[in-house]
Amino acid sequence: MLDAEDRSLFNEDHRAFRETVRRVLADVIEPRLDAHERDGIVEREAWEKVGAAGLLCPQVPEAYGGPGLDFAFNAIVGEEISYMGSAAGFTLQSDIVADYLVHYGSEDQKKRYLPGMVAGSTISAIAMTEPGAGSDLQGMKTLAKADGNGWKLSGSKTYITNGQSADLVIVAARTTEEGGAKGISLFLVETGDEGFSRGRNLDKIGLHGNDTSELFFDEVKLPADRLLGAENGGFIMLMQQLPQERLSIAVQAQASAQRAFDEAVKFTSDRKAFGRRIADFQNTRFTLADLKARLQVGWAHLDWAIQRHVAGKLTPAEASAAKLWHTEMQWDCCDTALQLHGGAGYMNEYPIARLWRDARVARIYGGTSEIMKELISRTIS
Amino acid sequence: MLDAEDRSLFNEDHRAFRETVRRVLADVIEPRLDAHERDGIVEREAWEKVGAAGLLCPQVPEAYGGPGLDFAFNAIVGEEISYMGSAAGFTLQSDIVADYLVHYGSEDQKKRYLPGMVAGSTISAIAMTEPGAGSDLQGMKTLAKADGNGWKLSGSKTYITNGQSADLVIVAARTTEEGGAKGISLFLVETGDEGFSRGRNLDKIGLHGNDTSELFFDEVKLPADRLLGAENGGFIMLMQQLPQERLSIAVQAQASAQRAFDEAVKFTSDRKAFGRRIADFQNTRFTLADLKARLQVGWAHLDWAIQRHVAGKLTPAEASAAKLWHTEMQWDCCDTALQLHGGAGYMNEYPIARLWRDARVARIYGGTSEIMKELISRTIS
Amino acid sequence: MLDAEDRSLFNEDHRAFRETVRRVLADVIEPRLDAHERDGIVEREAWEKVGAAGLLCPQVPEAYGGPGLDFAFNAIVGEEISYMGSAAGFTLQSDIVADYLVHYGSEDQKKRYLPGMVAGSTISAIAMTEPGAGSDLQGMKTLAKADGNGWKLSGSKTYITNGQSADLVIVAARTTEEGGAKGISLFLVETGDEGFSRGRNLDKIGLHGNDTSELFFDEVKLPADRLLGAENGGFIMLMQQLPQERLSIAVQAQASAQRAFDEAVKFTSDRKAFGRRIADFQNTRFTLADLKARLQVGWAHLDWAIQRHVAGKLTPAEASAAKLWHTEMQWDCCDTALQLHGGAGYMNEYPIARLWRDARVARIYGGTSEIMKELISRTIS
Amino acid sequence: MLDAEDRSLFNEDHRAFRETVRRVLADVIEPRLDAHERDGIVEREAWEKVGAAGLLCPQVPEAYGGPGLDFAFNAIVGEEISYMGSAAGFTLQSDIVADYLVHYGSEDQKKRYLPGMVAGSTISAIAMTEPGAGSDLQGMKTLAKADGNGWKLSGSKTYITNGQSADLVIVAARTTEEGGAKGISLFLVETGDEGFSRGRNLDKIGLHGNDTSELFFDEVKLPADRLLGAENGGFIMLMQQLPQERLSIAVQAQASAQRAFDEAVKFTSDRKAFGRRIADFQNTRFTLADLKARLQVGWAHLDWAIQRHVAGKLTPAEASAAKLWHTEMQWDCCDTALQLHGGAGYMNEYPIARLWRDARVARIYGGTSEIMKELISRTIS
Repeated sequence: MLDAEDRSLFNEDHRAFRETVRRVLADVIEPRLDAHERDGIVEREAWEKVGAAGLLCPQVPEAYGGPGLDFAFNAIVGEEISYMGSAAGFTLQSDIVADYLVHYGSEDQKKRYLPGMVAGSTISAIAMTEPGAGSDLQGMKTLAKADGNGWKLSGSKTYITNGQSADLVIVAARTTEEGGAKGISLFLVETGDEGFSRGRNLDKIGLHGNDTSELFFDEVKLPADRLLGAENGGFIMLMQQLPQERLSIAVQAQASAQRAFDEAVKFTSDRKAFGRRIADFQNTRFTLADLKARLQVGWAHLDWAIQRHVAGKLTPAEASAAKLWHTEMQWDCCDTALQLHGGAGYMNEYPIARLWRDARVARIYGGTSEIMKELISRTIS
Repeated sequence: MLDAEDRSLFNEDHRAFRETVRRVLADVIEPRLDAHERDGIVEREAWEKVGAAGLLCPQVPEAYGGPGLDFAFNAIVGEEISYMGSAAGFTLQSDIVADYLVHYGSEDQKKRYLPGMVAGSTISAIAMTEPGAGSDLQGMKTLAKADGNGWKLSGSKTYITNGQSADLVIVAARTTEEGGAKGISLFLVETGDEGFSRGRNLDKIGLHGNDTSELFFDEVKLPADRLLGAENGGFIMLMQQLPQERLSIAVQAQASAQRAFDEAVKFTSDRKAFGRRIADFQNTRFTLADLKARLQVGWAHLDWAIQRHVAGKLTPAEASAAKLWHTEMQWDCCDTALQLHGGAGYMNEYPIARLWRDARVARIYGGTSEIMKELISRTIS
Repeated sequence: MLDAEDRSLFNEDHRAFRETVRRVLADVIEPRLDAHERDGIVEREAWEKVGAAGLLCPQVPEAYGGPGLDFAFNAIVGEEISYMGSAAGFTLQSDIVADYLVHYGSEDQKKRYLPGMVAGSTISAIAMTEPGAGSDLQGMKTLAKADGNGWKLSGSKTYITNGQSADLVIVAARTTEEGGAKGISLFLVETGDEGFSRGRNLDKIGLHGNDTSELFFDEVKLPADRLLGAENGGFIMLMQQLPQERLSIAVQAQASAQRAFDEAVKFTSDRKAFGRRIADFQNTRFTLADLKARLQVGWAHLDWAIQRHVAGKLTPAEASAAKLWHTEMQWDCCDTALQLHGGAGYMNEYPIARLWRDARVARIYGGTSEIMKELISRTIS
Repeated sequence: MLDAEDRSLFNEDHRAFRETVRRVLADVIEPRLDAHERDGIVEREAWEKVGAAGLLCPQVPEAYGGPGLDFAFNAIVGEEISYMGSAAGFTLQSDIVADYLVHYGSEDQKKRYLPGMVAGSTISAIAMTEPGAGSDLQGMKTLAKADGNGWKLSGSKTYITNGQSADLVIVAARTTEEGGAKGISLFLVETGDEGFSRGRNLDKIGLHGNDTSELFFDEVKLPADRLLGAENGGFIMLMQQLPQERLSIAVQAQASAQRAFDEAVKFTSDRKAFGRRIADFQNTRFTLADLKARLQVGWAHLDWAIQRHVAGKLTPAEASAAKLWHTEMQWDCCDTALQLHGGAGYMNEYPIARLWRDARVARIYGGTSEIMKELISRTIS
């Protein structure tokens, strides 16, 4: 359904863009998928190639080197890269980090960072989670102390996507003693800054084509112009960006689920057991039919959510519901598709094994399913 | 979400029509809900009132007494009546029976039956299922033998909605020895026809505001003009009508699910346990949040499906997926909402008990969930 | 598996007793099942017949007219009556009320009430739940004020099984201003006591062969010897009796689940669709196989729990886990078995419809599944 | 519950044995867990140490160097090693391969192989599954052709546990043209035999502490005394051994599930979010309570099944039900426990990540859950 003419939110421009995306990914990423998986990182050259091809940061305005498109174009990249089974951190840069700069950056900050992010010569990350604290902003310990005209930043962050390769990291830190909703600010840390260091590339269950790190800040001196947005305005900015962040994950979840389904259809059509194609057993047929129904429902909902977001109407609770539903559906799809592979599903050489391992994090990162329920529940009276 | 301004498929006309529907149902049906439940039938007067108010058969062209609208208007009636918790068989007449006549009826047939169906003075039913045979057309035993210019119809049908009250019944019967896909025809039986009789109003788990019957045909003589559509064309007509029939059930399922959710929100907000509102316990909040996410997904999908059907593009497999997904979701919603009521949920005086009992049939009628999976699976290769 | 020679907890005596139970139930209850369902109550004559046959209150000592057996005999009656599909309130009297009197009654109280309860001439109930308060003892409003040597009892209770027919009701009431864990006592109310009255027989989703009522206490004067156990000792007694109460429900749940499974096997073996027995479709076979596995696990656990309870070792948390697991399993079994019946499953004339409607309350009464989880969770550190 | 005094199937001897097992595993295996995981194999020295300590092949009679115990002792080893989180292939040798030799081996075969298997100096495997054929014996292609007094064996097998390290492999092969139920025999292949070769150690999702290989047989010449049991008797032997094989997997599944639960309890008790221990949130408490109930049910059932197997009464369908239920429960336990770890659960350094990855194969190997359902369904009439 990925390229269905029937997805009414996409017009000719979108379709042409999707063709480009597919071609570039097939050229640049697909041949390197196993290498990324093995190395646990995407090489800088690949970033620059997808950047040069116009796949990074679609929403960045032309003034800063971008094409000035809307989120539907981000969604196209997210769908295609996820359907391919790549875990590369491009969408983090395009869908999340760039948006912070576009929305809250000063003119100077935009000029300094955005062109490189569009080109792929600057790799970025965002650092909120801390060791032992999860998504809980209240418990944040990283502290930025006023220091002359600027700040001195100390603390550590963990589970940071692109952490090994990043040149630029948006870091959330307390700027008051209490921290919490009203005392958090965002900072732009360059990874050449003195006092910045990276931990090892974390050993994850999956998502191997994506580096993830702990980051350390040891009295990093930050000049005043490294503050992003208003002082103590971090919480509000984080809240405002959540819909797009969550929708981005939902987009990827839906496309991965579709790929898992397609893999299961292919595998069960090719294999025989007890003299029949596995695809012909009623249990297989019913199981796949149930997934197909859920995928249909998912595509309809996803298109609704993308259109609503482009129109500026998607609420944080709606985006949380999207993240919750699509990632849980993705999981069911991947786990069921793996089971239909039998023993082959447990072997990393089959695409389903990677899809499945990568899928498991989707119910956790960007806020766990439990956090999503918490947020949705606050809108029920 | 029922009246959300945000449902982009509805325009001003639809919104005005929905207001009318609500007002009429509140006047005519709501005060009689308990009586319908007790009597197991909706009285003829109610049919005539909703007919007079323009709620029946929106798709019937003006030439035959109808307003000549599209299925989106049917959906509005279906949503509102289901959200109210009525099991009245109006949607069967509007969404299913009328459509057969509009599409396959001769000019004479349309003139004879449609105006009454629009007005509510003619109550209709459709009879496919046979005792012991379920949805299996292959096993159909009811037989129409050629007899002079016409036919002689013998057999029986069961689980026929509106069976007690119907004036007109579309009956599927074999017109060849073999029957099956190529040997089934449809007939218009008037319940005054000699040889026609009804069994008792069946004692069901729920859906009490809706009569359901076995029907008997003992050598019913049918003149030639009672054949609907082509001889031996029954199977094709049934297949062509399935998308709308299934979408109609999906519409009602979604609205019932929303009502069940709303009842649970209301109940848990009103009641206290252990010194707190039940709505404030984390388990309640997470449970409701999960349902709310599914309802959001459901509304988006439903609107997609309605639009697609109005555009003539909804495939039988897509409609089956809609029926499957929305009725299963309705069930989870109703069962979870009942549980959140505790002991009260088991008492028929609470709306949730009726919603729950009524919901159980949705996974069965119009083709069970298993049949839906069978049909969807045929489109997976 | 009900009569499997292989259930090692049962010896010859148990097997002989089970034969008696079956014969008596087949004679006395089975022919009256539909009447009980229609009337919403079990007639007094049936109570006396099962009492005369030795089926009531197996644990009551011989000194008070009982056989002085252990809970394994209660379990046999519970299994057989539930497998038959009767909702009669016998187990409430045998497994719950009698046990309170045996354990906490004075010599006089035992002599006064137990012989009649064994004989079936005295019908009993226990009244804890209050309108709007559920299982929350903290919120209890019924109050027993000291009054001379005795008490004056005022308040109301709801969802009381055997409420219409009871001669004797154990009533929990506050005996201090605060109530709560340390201020609740139990009283023996005779339904001839002045100020006692009953509400109507409540209209429930199922369990129609069982009357359920609201009870009202309007300054009921109770002499001192109507206090059961220690003053302000109600909470402790309730806690001590919970394991047997919950195990009793688990026993019935397991047997009902087995019956639902057996009904589905029978139905799908008898019916054909698309030219094959429904039982022969892979989906049917896999669905039934899954239930059969769960039933096997359930019987093993049930026998473990019964033995452990007879040995005095079953903890409240273990009994709660049993209640939770067996009733949820019963529900899945009944709902799946109904679905396998197709349209017939929705018709009250089929046993599965009654089993299913009756099953729904098991996740609610005797403490909801949520309350069970709460109690279990307190033992996890 | 692993060491509960309350597991009535275990006596003093069992408890003493369990103490030994724990001590030995803590000494020999625990310090090497990460190394096994990294290397994808258990070194021969570890086999010899656990053998020397008496942990291998408890059922082998004293005449062949074993202790001559019953399966309850196998279960103790299986529980402890699984609870520790090791994937070492000891249980395959003890619970499956040894049993074939004990039951079907000639006196010479027993003397030749069993002492080494008990001592750990001989490592064994069993090879049934073939590339592209799964569990389907009908489709087996490996062929043993009569050749002089002996046989010539050609074909390949896959997913063979201990395949890299094995000295001895029981191989199933066709000995008639048709193969199938009546034409399959078992052979003892020594890995020094000419024509035998191993593929690479397969790259699996988990179970890294366990080597798994494809094995190739290129006209391997086997003397007559390498036939195990009767010619063409393979199918019957496989069927007879299935109960113990499946029970062995159920044992390990239950213990792994318990470990996953214990890890979740520990993690959520240590971590805080939003100012509270994660363990104190109602969602955490209810989730853990549900798992605890299922674990209780599982232990009761497991003990029933072990006792029944020791008594020679566990049927193939009962063992299949055990395998199905315990491995599905293990999965739910592991997946839920991982989720309760949040981001940490996705990091391989946490025990839950390994438990979870290892658990996924349990629904597949030894016959998938679907195969289990197929087998159970054949006993439902």
